[in-house]
Amino acid sequence: MTLDDLPTPALVLDLGVLRRNLAMMRAAIARHPGVALRPHLKTAKCREVAELAAPGGGPITVSTLAEARFLADGWPDQIYGVGITPAKLDAVAALNAQGARVKVITDDAEAARAIAADGRVDALVEVDCGEHRGGVDPAETLAVARALGLRFAGIFTHAGHSYAGRSLDQMAAIAETERAAVVAAADALRAAGLAPGIVSMGSSPTALHAETLEGITEVRAGVYMFGDLFQEQLGTHPEGEIAVSVLASVIGRKPAQGVLLLDAGALAMSKDRSTAATPRDDGFGLVLDLDGRRSFGHAVLERAYQEHGVARPMPDLPVGAKLRVAPNHSCLTAAAFGRYHVVDGSREVVATWDRINGW
Amino acid sequence: MTLDDLPTPALVLDLGVLRRNLAMMRAAIARHPGVALRPHLKTAKCREVAELAAPGGGPITVSTLAEARFLADGWPDQIYGVGITPAKLDAVAALNAQGARVKVITDDAEAARAIAADGRVDALVEVDCGEHRGGVDPAETLAVARALGLRFAGIFTHAGHSYAGRSLDQMAAIAETERAAVVAAADALRAAGLAPGIVSMGSSPTALHAETLEGITEVRAGVYMFGDLFQEQLGTHPEGEIAVSVLASVIGRKPAQGVLLLDAGALAMSKDRSTAATPRDDGFGLVLDLDGRRSFGHAVLERAYQEHGVARPMPDLPVGAKLRVAPNHSCLTAAAFGRYHVVDGSREVVATWDRINGW
Repeated sequence: MTLDDLPTPALVLDLGVLRRNLAMMRAAIARHPGVALRPHLKTAKCREVAELAAPGGGPITVSTLAEARFLADGWPDQIYGVGITPAKLDAVAALNAQGARVKVITDDAEAARAIAADGRVDALVEVDCGEHRGGVDPAETLAVARALGLRFAGIFTHAGHSYAGRSLDQMAAIAETERAAVVAAADALRAAGLAPGIVSMGSSPTALHAETLEGITEVRAGVYMFGDLFQEQLGTHPEGEIAVSVLASVIGRKPAQGVLLLDAGALAMSKDRSTAATPRDDGFGLVLDLDGRRSFGHAVLERAYQEHGVARPMPDLPVGAKLRVAPNHSCLTAAAFGRYHVVDGSREVVATWDRINGW
Repeated sequence: MTLDDLPTPALVLDLGVLRRNLAMMRAAIARHPGVALRPHLKTAKCREVAELAAPGGGPITVSTLAEARFLADGWPDQIYGVGITPAKLDAVAALNAQGARVKVITDDAEAARAIAADGRVDALVEVDCGEHRGGVDPAETLAVARALGLRFAGIFTHAGHSYAGRSLDQMAAIAETERAAVVAAADALRAAGLAPGIVSMGSSPTALHAETLEGITEVRAGVYMFGDLFQEQLGTHPEGEIAVSVLASVIGRKPAQGVLLLDAGALAMSKDRSTAATPRDDGFGLVLDLDGRRSFGHAVLERAYQEHGVARPMPDLPVGAKLRVAPNHSCLTAAAFGRYHVVDGSREVVATWDRINGW
């Protein structure tokens, strides 16, 4: 079976690129002795990728209870990195009763009291280090940590605003803000007599570019595994090292306008337009040849309908010709597909790996 | 089981609203005696919805081969409304060998010759009526139709540019352009001795607002079944009659800023921003109460991360409180979920209906 034989659209994962991306992050974290990498499976949602990214059943992060269940047998040490609700504790406790050690996060004193009263699930306090998404103001960390009582396991932050950085200096500065915020919060807790066993930070850009991780016990990152056009434009992912792409067929031609219609539209690519705000706007995706090379210059999906993508500027190719399209945001594009067709530098499909989508 | 008991995020379908939307379209088409409605299942992707929208196994339209397979037993008369590639003919022919009558579309003379040579699948010629997405220039219709030989079954157009209309007068005018283009193409084929058995047009806005459908044999439409915020803003869907919504929980609070974090982010809602260009920008979705009412004024998802949605302006509600979020684009939002939790005007879940996602 080769890519030539696959029905389209389909999701392609290049194993060699994946391995290089994993090695890049391992090397970045290895600069900081004593700091663990807790890979985030939100992007890959896949056991075979977890085996490579978190070998030996190492600690992982998950973004859904579906991922937690799918990976609990094999990767028991998990942080479910989206603010918990009391109603979700039963699902987490059920996994832990079977031997997993899924920890949750909260930034809310009332939810923390519910976690303490429930008594079955350990939790980290999420601290806001400047993104202003989830996370308590650092000054309130102690109140939430105390509300967790015996279930308090550590603190957690995420500098999602690193995605607004536009230079490696900015990334390093945001990483330092992230580190300093969570370490200061940890120190304040220790001064109050609490012991945060885990001091966790991370996003792919800050994990790669932090100059020091002093005081941090672990770093979380996910999108680095695959990379995408947005991470390329941020300068945090090497050019041309995007591990996932969408295999597509030409389904229409407008040669006079340099346009091809592809069967990769909004459902296959997502409507993510994160490169719109970067120096090189890649539309809804960058068109590659069937071997994954950038043979068409800056040919992009200009428009994305439900099942149609409009690619331009493209040379004339016959209906049925196959191409690949690199995604703006690999987390969202991959989520449209139930499985990866794995290649390793050629068109041969060497494996098919399942994903766990949904919740 | 009620909505209070469901894990979040989850997809909710209100049966009463669905029935009213279906009746609205049936009434619109009934104004045109002799014109059939061929509902498009691209939005619903669901057998139970097909039973209501195309009762008695009536003709349907599909957007993927997965939908074609899922619905062939029950709805054998299908048009697969995305330009075919020769490699996909085997899958269509296999369904037809089992009793289905799936027809395909093409706008390409070379593909048409491949369809004729294959000899197993009937096809319609897709004509461009002004959207400039798929479809031949009307002047080239005859060449593609002749290339289909004995497999020629009719002609097909889609005025997707109706989505750029901003008044009912504009919708009616675009509908007339769509009708006139495909009827003129049909007439030209008849003058050349061909017999287009099917003359098919449609989009929800033009199906609802066409003043005449003379010369048309059937109309296709899909999004009307559920409606969405964009269709509301186009004026083609009644306000408050959106049949699908995402059930979400509060996972974080910033009461000083009027902000709630919800567990409905970019994966659950999609990153569709089609209301950005309409009079009322609904962000990534409009926040409803748990009963589906617009109790929070113009509270919208301002930002959508993978699993987090930032809702504002919102009253303070506790972590764990449940809400619903109406989608910008129901086709894309529904595609994130494997099933519908069906309600009928209350919080009671009266059924669970499966969707067929993917390709």
